[in-house]
Amino acid sequence: MRNVVVTGCPRADLGEVDALAPFGVATVHEAMGRTGYLGPGIRPVHLGLRVGGTAVTVVCWPGDNLMIHAAVEQCRPGDILVVTTTSPGTDGAFGELLATALRYRGVRGLVTTGGVRDVAELHAMNFPVFCAAVSAQGTVKATPGAVNTSVSIGGQHIVPGDAIVADDDGVVVVPRLAVPRALAAATERAAKESASRDAFGRGELGLDRYGLRAVLSGLGVEYVDYQTYLEGAR
Amino acid sequence: MRNVVVTGCPRADLGEVDALAPFGVATVHEAMGRTGYLGPGIRPVHLGLRVGGTAVTVVCWPGDNLMIHAAVEQCRPGDILVVTTTSPGTDGAFGELLATALRYRGVRGLVTTGGVRDVAELHAMNFPVFCAAVSAQGTVKATPGAVNTSVSIGGQHIVPGDAIVADDDGVVVVPRLAVPRALAAATERAAKESASRDAFGRGELGLDRYGLRAVLSGLGVEYVDYQTYLEGAR
Amino acid sequence: MRNVVVTGCPRADLGEVDALAPFGVATVHEAMGRTGYLGPGIRPVHLGLRVGGTAVTVVCWPGDNLMIHAAVEQCRPGDILVVTTTSPGTDGAFGELLATALRYRGVRGLVTTGGVRDVAELHAMNFPVFCAAVSAQGTVKATPGAVNTSVSIGGQHIVPGDAIVADDDGVVVVPRLAVPRALAAATERAAKESASRDAFGRGELGLDRYGLRAVLSGLGVEYVDYQTYLEGAR
Amino acid sequence: MRNVVVTGCPRADLGEVDALAPFGVATVHEAMGRTGYLGPGIRPVHLGLRVGGTAVTVVCWPGDNLMIHAAVEQCRPGDILVVTTTSPGTDGAFGELLATALRYRGVRGLVTTGGVRDVAELHAMNFPVFCAAVSAQGTVKATPGAVNTSVSIGGQHIVPGDAIVADDDGVVVVPRLAVPRALAAATERAAKESASRDAFGRGELGLDRYGLRAVLSGLGVEYVDYQTYLEGAR
Amino acid sequence: MRNVVVTGCPRADLGEVDALAPFGVATVHEAMGRTGYLGPGIRPVHLGLRVGGTAVTVVCWPGDNLMIHAAVEQCRPGDILVVTTTSPGTDGAFGELLATALRYRGVRGLVTTGGVRDVAELHAMNFPVFCAAVSAQGTVKATPGAVNTSVSIGGQHIVPGDAIVADDDGVVVVPRLAVPRALAAATERAAKESASRDAFGRGELGLDRYGLRAVLSGLGVEYVDYQTYLEGAR
Amino acid sequence: MRNVVVTGCPRADLGEVDALAPFGVATVHEAMGRTGYLGPGIRPVHLGLRVGGTAVTVVCWPGDNLMIHAAVEQCRPGDILVVTTTSPGTDGAFGELLATALRYRGVRGLVTTGGVRDVAELHAMNFPVFCAAVSAQGTVKATPGAVNTSVSIGGQHIVPGDAIVADDDGVVVVPRLAVPRALAAATERAAKESASRDAFGRGELGLDRYGLRAVLSGLGVEYVDYQTYLEGAR
Repeated sequence: MRNVVVTGCPRADLGEVDALAPFGVATVHEAMGRTGYLGPGIRPVHLGLRVGGTAVTVVCWPGDNLMIHAAVEQCRPGDILVVTTTSPGTDGAFGELLATALRYRGVRGLVTTGGVRDVAELHAMNFPVFCAAVSAQGTVKATPGAVNTSVSIGGQHIVPGDAIVADDDGVVVVPRLAVPRALAAATERAAKESASRDAFGRGELGLDRYGLRAVLSGLGVEYVDYQTYLEGAR
Repeated sequence: MRNVVVTGCPRADLGEVDALAPFGVATVHEAMGRTGYLGPGIRPVHLGLRVGGTAVTVVCWPGDNLMIHAAVEQCRPGDILVVTTTSPGTDGAFGELLATALRYRGVRGLVTTGGVRDVAELHAMNFPVFCAAVSAQGTVKATPGAVNTSVSIGGQHIVPGDAIVADDDGVVVVPRLAVPRALAAATERAAKESASRDAFGRGELGLDRYGLRAVLSGLGVEYVDYQTYLEGAR
Repeated sequence: MRNVVVTGCPRADLGEVDALAPFGVATVHEAMGRTGYLGPGIRPVHLGLRVGGTAVTVVCWPGDNLMIHAAVEQCRPGDILVVTTTSPGTDGAFGELLATALRYRGVRGLVTTGGVRDVAELHAMNFPVFCAAVSAQGTVKATPGAVNTSVSIGGQHIVPGDAIVADDDGVVVVPRLAVPRALAAATERAAKESASRDAFGRGELGLDRYGLRAVLSGLGVEYVDYQTYLEGAR
Repeated sequence: MRNVVVTGCPRADLGEVDALAPFGVATVHEAMGRTGYLGPGIRPVHLGLRVGGTAVTVVCWPGDNLMIHAAVEQCRPGDILVVTTTSPGTDGAFGELLATALRYRGVRGLVTTGGVRDVAELHAMNFPVFCAAVSAQGTVKATPGAVNTSVSIGGQHIVPGDAIVADDDGVVVVPRLAVPRALAAATERAAKESASRDAFGRGELGLDRYGLRAVLSGLGVEYVDYQTYLEGAR
Repeated sequence: MRNVVVTGCPRADLGEVDALAPFGVATVHEAMGRTGYLGPGIRPVHLGLRVGGTAVTVVCWPGDNLMIHAAVEQCRPGDILVVTTTSPGTDGAFGELLATALRYRGVRGLVTTGGVRDVAELHAMNFPVFCAAVSAQGTVKATPGAVNTSVSIGGQHIVPGDAIVADDDGVVVVPRLAVPRALAAATERAAKESASRDAFGRGELGLDRYGLRAVLSGLGVEYVDYQTYLEGAR
Repeated sequence: MRNVVVTGCPRADLGEVDALAPFGVATVHEAMGRTGYLGPGIRPVHLGLRVGGTAVTVVCWPGDNLMIHAAVEQCRPGDILVVTTTSPGTDGAFGELLATALRYRGVRGLVTTGGVRDVAELHAMNFPVFCAAVSAQGTVKATPGAVNTSVSIGGQHIVPGDAIVADDDGVVVVPRLAVPRALAAATERAAKESASRDAFGRGELGLDRYGLRAVLSGLGVEYVDYQTYLEGAR
């Protein structure tokens, strides 16, 4: 890993990100062809928030939050800090003080593959945090890392400036240049979902709406009544 | 696995299930001789709900929710959908649209060994969900499975039509024909628990109430005061 | 393991513990030189509580809560029950009835490496519970263990009478004789944190406040602008 | 759970089981329509063994091996002991002494969702063990359970007398009455696999042998050369 | 944690440790009243070794092996290095070079809650390693810790100079002053196990040898023949 | 994800890869500045192999190995197949037949974040497999994915044609264009390691060789003799 702080990274257009975020993580993920989801291991500590922003990335050594401090200075309004470590760890590398520093700079939230602490205080601040662990264990500031290099979380590649959307379903990344496309696709998908929601609310079945009866039949799925099934199983 | 949708399964009596559910998961599990609990891995996404119903079972391929769509049609008012996969996976095979379709048919909730998504929307709908994971990852509709065959979750066997009770403690299954027995036993146990709660609230000890002093003594547990213990440890 | 109930253990001074608890888990852990944290595996079932007290310890056999009943009798007002098992397990060895018995005796909460049940009822009672699992699975009362012997949880040694502080960040232990020192150190640290919070809230950077620019430079971390970095990567 | 030892259970025909076992776990699982596999969590401690037999089942309390002792008496030559616990646990409930007792009775191996110990001695005895954990932690003999009731492991239902096949790929169960069908299907599948092995060994592709080019094309998978792909990604 | 290297720790008598080790982990654990086992999470990378020695303990920061280097100097012939970290981590803090340095000083093996690397080379050296992970991830030398302070692993307390025994079943610790007692108890237990092995090898049952028929009966375990059981289940 | 098979990808120079592989995973990882290691979750099924080659990448749907069949055709002598899935899963998507097909084409091994089966047969073939799970569970061929797009495993980015080195320590990736640099750096590092090995074998300490006494002292690590330490702790 090159020990570097990359400055002046371009960001996704914040207006577009702000238009994209309300669609939520699941819809954005689907709209992008089922890509970008960071996996079920990164969860909100408190449910009920939805946030979008542009990624500032950080790579820390385990047990060390030096590079988060370096990253704060690189943040602009609308950013979301995205932290990972060179190997898995749960230490509470982020807490209320860093959240206070980020809030001053207009940062909208934190995504981390590690741990956070002060979660009562973060909740009181209404600072959105998506993480793999809660841990009070403190960290040192002794080992270098990187700010604003590309990172991989949950099998997804995140480049600084990419759009991040996070809510109760977890976190999704959209490549910076793909945000306009994501916005169009999410709008289209949301309309389709809305129509399906209406149809299902009126009693239509997915079997009919999506043409799945033919799929089931083509795959050899049989319909058998209970008594016949029991007798066959004997 | 036979690729089949079994139709017309008998259900536990819904009136009896409705009488059983308020006792809650722990009491029902105890009343049935400490059986039927699906384990600590299946949790509510949001705390505070308690629900009972009759099982419609689904076996899906990992990453595929085709059979959930087939199952919707088999549901009746009072049912709870119970989903498992042929191998462990976390994908969000269930979300708001399927919940809308199930609600139309009077289905009371979902239990799954896999993942769900749209959890903010499910919460807004007040649709009870008990699951092993939250994941926005989408699924396909390409591989067959089964509806209303018996399944095993957490070492417990679930037959379609069995009673399901779920709350903040997780999920318990009661075999269809055992529901009347469970109801009687839960009623009896609840009365006993109520008496114990009163006694403990007045300061009685479990040691006395359950006759455990003799047990401890029979097992050779000694009472030693702190100073004596310290000296013995030296 | 010696099968023993140790009686009459000295406790940390409750007034001092009550002064220490409001600082919270993270601050106490830091004040004690980053020691005593029981790890990210022990979590509150419901967020939003902070509690302090003196440890009464219990060692149970897996699937068995006999010794918890023996421990109730040893509890005094201000205690927190700290339960572990001889090998890992998730069974619901603790629930509403034991909480009722503990509350009568003025016990303030439960910490366990195992499971709890009746979590809806415990929440209604406002009884703080910090645990590794929720499970309705019942336990027996058949195998001996120990009360008020020292135990190890999450790599930390806990001696009966030690101070316990627990909140949304987890659980920390402070050795009985170290409580006055912890109180002084936490007070000092909280003042420092408060000053840092004010500074960060005004836009000061950790880089400057903690002298980290020199650290980064000494470690060879370079600052590179985006275009230069991209060209170097080609 | 009913606390019971069921005696005189019928077994699958041992001659048929002996004919089935050499096909191995993967082939038997495939031949049975991809059913019966107990999952990747149950592994051999030492690689290189393949064994078949008929199931004698045991349900133990965690931390307790009383019922294994009860089960030994129920074993006949050709049996495999299949142990599970009422809740997950890793204790070493099985070791060299029990293996000695089982070997005397002609038992061929052990499958357990829990732990084993004395693994060096078991290896020296050449006694096949498939388990979820190795642990030296000892167990008590204090809590009842069941022998030869049906159990569920890894989502699979096991009835006493069912055929068990175990090798380096794990463990598969075949229902007693399905063994003849499994044998025929495995024979057929092995022949097909053998032909495929020969074909693949001569350079034929699965794409052609299984008609997958049409599948890929029908699913919209495109073939794109590297330069074109790079340009499209820009 | 106090950042300290404690020098000149007393060790368990090496002759006694050498007499104890051949009994193996399971027997020593049983002989000590089922205590001291470090749990199923610490495993040998290669099976087939059994080793005993005296503990030199190390506490490292995650991702940092500075204190292991400090510990080497404190080692004497007959020691076993016991490493833990302030929070869980898998990095390969130990490899061939450190093993070479330890071997020079007569150290007999390594026990670690973290990771090791160069496992092919360690195997070629025949250097026994018991660990929680294998990882090639390198570590830094930047953060202080402790050598020869007491540590807790798997709920067991380890004091420098305690006896360590490790084999295919994992690792057990015996307090320094308890080694003579452990030796006597292990000798006695091994004799008892030997007699049991002979008895079981001649077909005696644990049910009879341990008087378990009365236990089963006292616990209400019934013996039911297969047909009767089936009819009762209907 | 774009459903695509990318053809004609450039590879790292095989001669250079062959020169790099013998240094082993740990040394290559160190030489590349501690990057590229795929983490402790991907392990060899059998120990004792070391292999290098060029990556052909595959993205499969969970429970589906269609794209592995598509990938076989894209393989050349010297390649290593690198498989991941769109969400975590353990199914045995790879076995003896695919290994046979790969071997015909000169492929040197498999790396997968999923499961493999037929491990006895793969061992007999001496086909190197590095995986996260062993599972006999079969897969379907129904859902599209990608061949030779870049993938992320264990936080590391892998581009088709990159060099892969795998041994008992796991798997490391080296970017295609960095292989010459890796080779030079590994050569240099191996020389340094060799000198250190000699020095440690003669009794030199890391404390002296790496100048760590000053580091310890600068970090405030004290040396305290045992008696003094005990008295301070009282």
